[in-house]
Amino acid sequence: MLKQWEEMQCPADTELEERLREVREKLKVQQLKVKEHRIPVLVLVEGWGTAGKGSLIGQMIKNIDPRFFKVASMSAPTEEEKRKPFLYRHFVKIPEAGKFSFLDSGWMDEIMREKLDGELNDRKYEERIESVKRFERQLTDNGYLVVKLFLQVSREEQKKRIARLAGEKDTKWRVSKNDHWQNEHYDTCMEAFDAYLKNTALPSAPWYIIDAKSKKWTELQALQILTEAIDVALANNALAVPILQNVFPMEKMPLLSEVALDKTLDADAYKEELKRLQHRLGELHNRLYRKKVPVIIAYEGWDAAGKGGNIKRLTGALDPRGYEVHPIASPEPHEKARHYLWRFWTRLPKTGHIAIFDRTWYGRVMVERLEGFCSENDWKRAYNEINEFEKELHDWGAVILKFWVQIDKDTQLARFNERQNTPEKQWKITEEDWRNREKWDAYEEAVNEMLQKTSTTYAPWHILESVDKRYARIKALKIVIKELEKVL
Amino acid sequence: MLKQWEEMQCPADTELEERLREVREKLKVQQLKVKEHRIPVLVLVEGWGTAGKGSLIGQMIKNIDPRFFKVASMSAPTEEEKRKPFLYRHFVKIPEAGKFSFLDSGWMDEIMREKLDGELNDRKYEERIESVKRFERQLTDNGYLVVKLFLQVSREEQKKRIARLAGEKDTKWRVSKNDHWQNEHYDTCMEAFDAYLKNTALPSAPWYIIDAKSKKWTELQALQILTEAIDVALANNALAVPILQNVFPMEKMPLLSEVALDKTLDADAYKEELKRLQHRLGELHNRLYRKKVPVIIAYEGWDAAGKGGNIKRLTGALDPRGYEVHPIASPEPHEKARHYLWRFWTRLPKTGHIAIFDRTWYGRVMVERLEGFCSENDWKRAYNEINEFEKELHDWGAVILKFWVQIDKDTQLARFNERQNTPEKQWKITEEDWRNREKWDAYEEAVNEMLQKTSTTYAPWHILESVDKRYARIKALKIVIKELEKVL
Repeated sequence: MLKQWEEMQCPADTELEERLREVREKLKVQQLKVKEHRIPVLVLVEGWGTAGKGSLIGQMIKNIDPRFFKVASMSAPTEEEKRKPFLYRHFVKIPEAGKFSFLDSGWMDEIMREKLDGELNDRKYEERIESVKRFERQLTDNGYLVVKLFLQVSREEQKKRIARLAGEKDTKWRVSKNDHWQNEHYDTCMEAFDAYLKNTALPSAPWYIIDAKSKKWTELQALQILTEAIDVALANNALAVPILQNVFPMEKMPLLSEVALDKTLDADAYKEELKRLQHRLGELHNRLYRKKVPVIIAYEGWDAAGKGGNIKRLTGALDPRGYEVHPIASPEPHEKARHYLWRFWTRLPKTGHIAIFDRTWYGRVMVERLEGFCSENDWKRAYNEINEFEKELHDWGAVILKFWVQIDKDTQLARFNERQNTPEKQWKITEEDWRNREKWDAYEEAVNEMLQKTSTTYAPWHILESVDKRYARIKALKIVIKELEKVL
Repeated sequence: MLKQWEEMQCPADTELEERLREVREKLKVQQLKVKEHRIPVLVLVEGWGTAGKGSLIGQMIKNIDPRFFKVASMSAPTEEEKRKPFLYRHFVKIPEAGKFSFLDSGWMDEIMREKLDGELNDRKYEERIESVKRFERQLTDNGYLVVKLFLQVSREEQKKRIARLAGEKDTKWRVSKNDHWQNEHYDTCMEAFDAYLKNTALPSAPWYIIDAKSKKWTELQALQILTEAIDVALANNALAVPILQNVFPMEKMPLLSEVALDKTLDADAYKEELKRLQHRLGELHNRLYRKKVPVIIAYEGWDAAGKGGNIKRLTGALDPRGYEVHPIASPEPHEKARHYLWRFWTRLPKTGHIAIFDRTWYGRVMVERLEGFCSENDWKRAYNEINEFEKELHDWGAVILKFWVQIDKDTQLARFNERQNTPEKQWKITEEDWRNREKWDAYEEAVNEMLQKTSTTYAPWHILESVDKRYARIKALKIVIKELEKVL
């Protein structure tokens, strides 16, 4: 792409000014429509060092109400960010519905540096490209407008700019080592950039190469592309996209109706086992902390199935500095305004830590599906999106454990009644629980589909038979221990 | 994709039958909605030899009204087809709006055979992949539903089937040499198929791998995928897609207002030149026929600019067995029901022949744009679609010449009046011509944009100054001769 790219003819000054005025005006009007139609707009500005990424963003935002945009500038990952998956620091910066995010370079820049530094071998590079494509596709599939700009300057022009900036005391700091390196290895960089642009050109999120010869000309091109892209996004509403076939290795799961629920454990055996297993888990927690293995434990299950008690028996064994429990309720407005996985990306553990989710991202294919909080296309697409999400975590090195806490309908009724009739437990039961109970059959169907479609070998579901809660707790502990032992 | 793919669990007989009944019923209902929403549906069935592509199609169409579908079976290209561009025989088979086309293998099969036979080197293979991706993207961008199925059987299963079919007198003919070859080189084929599926997986036209172990199970999977894809297509209406940036090398074109129209040629010089040039063109026509070079000459221009007379001076020199003139009027219903380039694909010349188009595919960005016959997104996308189309023709080896026949507004008025006042010329002038004339400025703007955006180095525009028609005719002849000499 970049290699075939030809410099464009910049219009004469008066025409340039005239066209700039027009397109700035257009963006000013569009920002209100973007707001009204709740379109999240992500503008990624990549390009050569000294091409003027920052000042382009500075120009673009002048036309947008400050309440409607955020600017993020990519620097080397912090120590904290290094302990998260590659996509983490990019995913957390996606805009809210109706708002703009301008990124002063991002995942392209990061991958290119890693590649040119020789940190990424071919296989790792392929993996990164795959991650990026999935990430951007998930965004556009979920209604994001993703505009990707690459600012192009020639070797000579870059050299001139470096010399000019480096020559003045006030601007010297703006020339980085990397800028010098790029200029000295221009052809090598060009080769790498060209391949990246080609590899990540999605029809729904194409690349645009911008001739960055002069500031105003750069701005004109960028605003023309942006406003045109907004026009296209405004013309679409509630896009449905093809549901992709699963490409991940799956584990066979039973139907819920096939799960025998008569398993029990007597109190003495339970006590003994609990003590022994918690001790063992404590040891393992220490080791995974030292080996920096991140662990993600996800709990889903029927109301009153015993998730809370089960989680308590796990955490009882853990050092509080090394884990966190995330109770997941319905999303806050700022969460609802983003990709549904955003609030889980932001809650990921650091390497060496355990994150336990009491309810999870699987809400998308259960409550959101059944209550109509998302479209049919949304939840049907979500199985793959979730498998991709968990694959990302797995490739990062995470151990992923997913528990479905299973009881039968009668057991639930008995527990609901007990809660209702026990004053200190009444807070645990709500009208909504009773309403959900009425939809048991529909939920069961959804859960079965979820178990079939998201039990990958790298993140399989485990069913905890929880009519006897003691049995379920011991089983959970055993599974966690077994899986951790595999990697430690 | 294929290599990671795992065999799926076929449901038990009664469940299979039940689910088949449901999904067949669903397709029966959907076909009417497909008709009503005018969605063209292309179902491409690829896969291993003996996997049952033909019988799957046979089963699927039982649920569709025969008026609503066509089946096309791919065999080796005919001599006629070999003299057309690679995509030709595939493009001509795309369905009409509201109808289904089922293809019993297609471009994948063709490319795989060429590749496995060693006919395609890496560069050629890359080119094919690029063509396929552009082709499929153009279809989905233009509202086509493209469903791509790959029927998978294991090496052992294929071997068994070959033996069974070959063992019976009645079915022996169904086993091809290629089936045997595939089975003997199963791993090599697998490798090639896997790469192809990966290379051509578009989010808007993904691949689905079907476990083709048994007939009914194959049908169930295929119908589930098809009906689901139709649901998605029905949920979308009037999709707008991002406008891609140009990736082709361009020639700089003047604005129409910058074209000097005072060029003339006196009658004697004209006569002499005409004779000489026509003679030369006649010779070249012979040579290009022998060298099998296809030539495409496209005429666009203002009403009464002199296109007809200009074309006549070209054809006057040509052997009638080696050229065809295609006058392009507004599309017939069966043409309007397909991708707008379809009626030009079907009119392509054979190698060694000349096709002259009196008005062309550029109608999309002129009359269709200005009269609102297509959406804004449609015509804005068309510049790239047309550049891609012409690139395909160029890569095939065609010489592409595009003429814009230019006059000024006063000259047009004079010629209109002359036509109006000359009884034998009155048929040449209509109310519509007068109406179009009123929109001169809007047309001029559209023409300028067209010239800027579609004058590629491999298919540049040439402006014929035609206030003096003699000058324009001689200029056209000279350009044609010069371009043909380059390749002969």
